[in-house]
Amino acid sequence: MVIPQIKNDLMNRKILLDESDIPTHWYNIMADMPNKPLPPLNPKTGQPAGPGDLSPIFPMGLIMQEVSTERYVEIPDEVREIYKIWRPTPMYRATGLEKLLGTPAKIYYKYEGVSPSGSHKPNTAVPQAYYNKQEGVKSITTETGAGQWGTALAFACAQFGIRCEVYMVRISYDQKPYRKVMMNTFGAEVYPSPSDRTEAGRRILAEDPETSGSLGIAISEAIERAVMDDDTKYSLGSVLNHVLLHQTVIGQEAIKQLEYAGDYPDVVIAPLGGGSNFAGISFPFLKNNLTEGKNTRFVAVEPASCPKLTQGEFMYDFGDSAGYTPLLPMYTLGHNFKPAAIHAGGLRYHGASVLCSQLLKDGLIEAVALQQLECFEAGVMLAKSEGIIAAPEATHAVAQVIREANQAKEEGVEKTILFNLCGHGYVDMQAYDDYFAGKLTDHSFTENELKEGLKEIRELQPL
Amino acid sequence: MVIPQIKNDLMNRKILLDESDIPTHWYNIMADMPNKPLPPLNPKTGQPAGPGDLSPIFPMGLIMQEVSTERYVEIPDEVREIYKIWRPTPMYRATGLEKLLGTPAKIYYKYEGVSPSGSHKPNTAVPQAYYNKQEGVKSITTETGAGQWGTALAFACAQFGIRCEVYMVRISYDQKPYRKVMMNTFGAEVYPSPSDRTEAGRRILAEDPETSGSLGIAISEAIERAVMDDDTKYSLGSVLNHVLLHQTVIGQEAIKQLEYAGDYPDVVIAPLGGGSNFAGISFPFLKNNLTEGKNTRFVAVEPASCPKLTQGEFMYDFGDSAGYTPLLPMYTLGHNFKPAAIHAGGLRYHGASVLCSQLLKDGLIEAVALQQLECFEAGVMLAKSEGIIAAPEATHAVAQVIREANQAKEEGVEKTILFNLCGHGYVDMQAYDDYFAGKLTDHSFTENELKEGLKEIRELQPL
Repeated sequence: MVIPQIKNDLMNRKILLDESDIPTHWYNIMADMPNKPLPPLNPKTGQPAGPGDLSPIFPMGLIMQEVSTERYVEIPDEVREIYKIWRPTPMYRATGLEKLLGTPAKIYYKYEGVSPSGSHKPNTAVPQAYYNKQEGVKSITTETGAGQWGTALAFACAQFGIRCEVYMVRISYDQKPYRKVMMNTFGAEVYPSPSDRTEAGRRILAEDPETSGSLGIAISEAIERAVMDDDTKYSLGSVLNHVLLHQTVIGQEAIKQLEYAGDYPDVVIAPLGGGSNFAGISFPFLKNNLTEGKNTRFVAVEPASCPKLTQGEFMYDFGDSAGYTPLLPMYTLGHNFKPAAIHAGGLRYHGASVLCSQLLKDGLIEAVALQQLECFEAGVMLAKSEGIIAAPEATHAVAQVIREANQAKEEGVEKTILFNLCGHGYVDMQAYDDYFAGKLTDHSFTENELKEGLKEIRELQPL
Repeated sequence: MVIPQIKNDLMNRKILLDESDIPTHWYNIMADMPNKPLPPLNPKTGQPAGPGDLSPIFPMGLIMQEVSTERYVEIPDEVREIYKIWRPTPMYRATGLEKLLGTPAKIYYKYEGVSPSGSHKPNTAVPQAYYNKQEGVKSITTETGAGQWGTALAFACAQFGIRCEVYMVRISYDQKPYRKVMMNTFGAEVYPSPSDRTEAGRRILAEDPETSGSLGIAISEAIERAVMDDDTKYSLGSVLNHVLLHQTVIGQEAIKQLEYAGDYPDVVIAPLGGGSNFAGISFPFLKNNLTEGKNTRFVAVEPASCPKLTQGEFMYDFGDSAGYTPLLPMYTLGHNFKPAAIHAGGLRYHGASVLCSQLLKDGLIEAVALQQLECFEAGVMLAKSEGIIAAPEATHAVAQVIREANQAKEEGVEKTILFNLCGHGYVDMQAYDDYFAGKLTDHSFTENELKEGLKEIRELQPL
C-alpha cells in the first residue's frame, strides 16, 4: 500500500476546527420554513397553548426559545465555555469505509461521540442547565430510557452546581447498570421508574409491582417532582423546538468543516428518535436549500419497529404517554404506542418533533425505516474500517449511508454523503453481543397493530 | 460568571494539532541514557539473549527495534496513515480541575482515550500488526487481562487483514463481557484462559477446572499457539523496548502542543503498569533533560497493591509467570507475585520495563505508590470538573496530580503539571460502582508477603 502525498492536508482523515470556530449563535429554522408549524394546543381548552402553559415546568429563558421565530439566538459565553470541553467535534472523511465499499461516493461524518456523555445530548443539556441556573433553579428532574440523556444532563448540572434527579425506566436501570453509574459519577441521583417517590409511580407500582416501566411513566414522575417544588424544574432531551435549536451547532460546524475540504453534501443522513440529532446536522444545510437554492437531500432514518415517519399519521398528539404535555402537531404512532424492545432505545419514541414533522409533510426532508439486523451489520463494517464502534441508534445512519454509497457504485455516479455519527457504543456492547449471538430479529407490523395506537388520538383531536 | 477574552486562543481548553503534526519518527531513549540497560539473558545459558532467541515469536522488524540504539526510528507511512484515525490526540488545559482545586498550578493533560480501543494501546498495536504483515504473518496471538490491549490489537489486525486470537484471563472474560464484545466487533476470536486449545491450558484445567486464570497462564497459551504455526506470531502490549518506543508519539506531540501554549512542564506524571504509557509521555521530555539541560521531574504512579518500583528489587526476572521470556533486569516483585484484585487491571504487573527500571535506578525518574480509594476519589473530581470519566489505571495519575497541585497551593508557588490521561473508563463503570457502594478497600503488605515472591528469583539469578 502506497499512501500518496501523506502530508497534504487534503488527505487528512479528520477535519478539525479551533475553539474560536464554535458557533456564536444557534440557528432557528422556524424563521425560514415556508409553512410554519401549527401551534401546540392546550388539551383542556383546545386553544393554542401559550408560555403560561409551560412555565410551571420550564424556565422562561427556554420557553421564549420554544416560541421564538428569530433566525439566530445568541449562545451565552458561559455555554460556549463549557462547549469547549468537546466542541468543535471532529469531522471525518470515511476513507476506510469508502475503500471497504469500493464506492465512488465521498463519505463524511460528524462525530458527536467525543462529548462527556458520548453523544450529541450535552449540546442541549448544557444550555438547559444554564438557563435554569440563571433563574435560580436549584434542582432539575428528567427521565431517561437508555441513559444517554440522563448522563448528559447529569454532566451539565455538575458544571453549574445544580441537583439532578433522574427517573430511569426500570428495565434499563436493571439492564444498563453502567449508564446509571456514569450518572452517579457526574453526581446525579438516579431512581428506577416507577418509584415510590411520586403519586404516579406509587399508583403504577400498586397495580403492577413487577412492571418494567416505560418512558411515559418516567416522564410523569419527573414532571410531578418538578411541579412539586418552586425551585425545581423539568428538562427534556429531544422533540421540543428549543432542544432542536441547541443542536444546530452540529450542522453549523459541519458546513465550515466541509468548506475546508472544498466539499458540499448531496445528501445528509441522520437517525431520528425525537428529531434532535437529525435537526442538529440538517437544519443549517436545509437553510441553504431554503434561502440559497442549494439542493441537498435530507434523510431521516427511523427503526422499522417504530416507524412514525413512514407509517404514522400527521395528527395532534401528546408528547408523552401520560398526557401532561400540550397537544403537538406531528407524525405519530399514538402516544400509547409500545415499540418492540430493540436495542436502539433512543429511537423508540412514538412521535417526531413538530419541526421535523412539518418539514416532512412539506416534502423538504425524506424518511426511511430500516431493520435492526441491517443496522448492526453496518455498525460492524464501520468498526472494522473506521475504528469507531457506533451506538445502536447511530448504526441506523450508517446503514442508510451504505445503501446510498452502494447505489452510487451501481450507477457509477459521484456523490457526497454526510452523516451524523451521533454517539459511540461503548456502553451498549450488550447489543452487539446479542447481534453476534443471533438473538436479534427484524420486525414487522400487522396493519391492525398500527391502527390501534392511532384510533385513540383520532378520537382525542382530529386534525 | 464572566469569561474574559473567550475568543483568545490562549484561553482554549484544548490544544489540537493537524494530522501533518503526527511524528515522523519514534524516539529511542536508549541512545541518550547515561547508563545503558544490562542485556536480557537466555535463562538456559545465562548468556546475553540475541535476536535468535526472540525470532520464533516476534517478526524481525520488531526484534531489530527491540535491540536498536538509534536515536530515531522512522514511522512507516502506512502506520501514520492509520494513526490519523485518532492522532494527534488532544491536549487539554484542565481549567475545570484547577478551579475546583483552587491551585496556582497549571495543569495540562494529554488524552489518549480518543483512540479506537479507548487508550494509548493502539499506538503500538498498529505498528506491531504492520511489521507482522510485512513479514507475511497471517495470525497474531496475544493475552489480555482487563481487555484494553486485546481490543487495541483486534482493531490493528482488522486494519491489516490479520487473524487475531486473544487469550483473556477467565475472571475478566466473565466479569468484563463488554471488552470481549468490543474485540469480537473488531473481528478477533477471544478465548477464556486457561482454554483447552493449548497444552499449558489443558494442564491447568486438569489440575483446577474452576481456576480463574492469570495473565501468566494467558501469556503461556498465546506464546504456545504462536510457536505452533510458522505463519503465526505473538504480540505483547507493554514492557518491551519496542513497545515503549512506539508510545513516544504521545510525548512528542505533547511537546509541540505545550509550545503552542507557551509552556513547559515542571513535572510529568503517568501511571505505570509495565511502563509503556509512562514512557510514551515522559521519554521525549526526558531527552530534553538529558541533552538540553532541562530539569523536569518524572513521576511514575503505581498502585499500592503492586508496588514494584517503590518496594520491589532491581533483579533479573522473567517477564512472564511461566518463564518463557528471557531474563530481564528490572524492578520486580517476583514473576509469581499475585497482586490483589484491584480494578486497575492494567497496573497489576509484577515488574517494570527494563528501560523504566534503569532510569529509576539512576535517579532520572521518581516513583510513588497510591491507594485505590484516593485514586477513585480523584477520578470523580476529574469527571465532575473536566467531563471525562477516566479508566481506573488513569485515575492513579490524577490522584498524584491533585497531590502536586495541592502542594503548590500550600506553598504558594506556580508550577506546570502535565499528565497522561491514558484511557477512558466507559467500559470500567463497575469499578466506580464498587467504589460508590463502599466495596473497595486500600491495601497493605506484610514484609513477608513481599519477600516471598523475591526469594524465588533470588535463587534463580542473582544480580
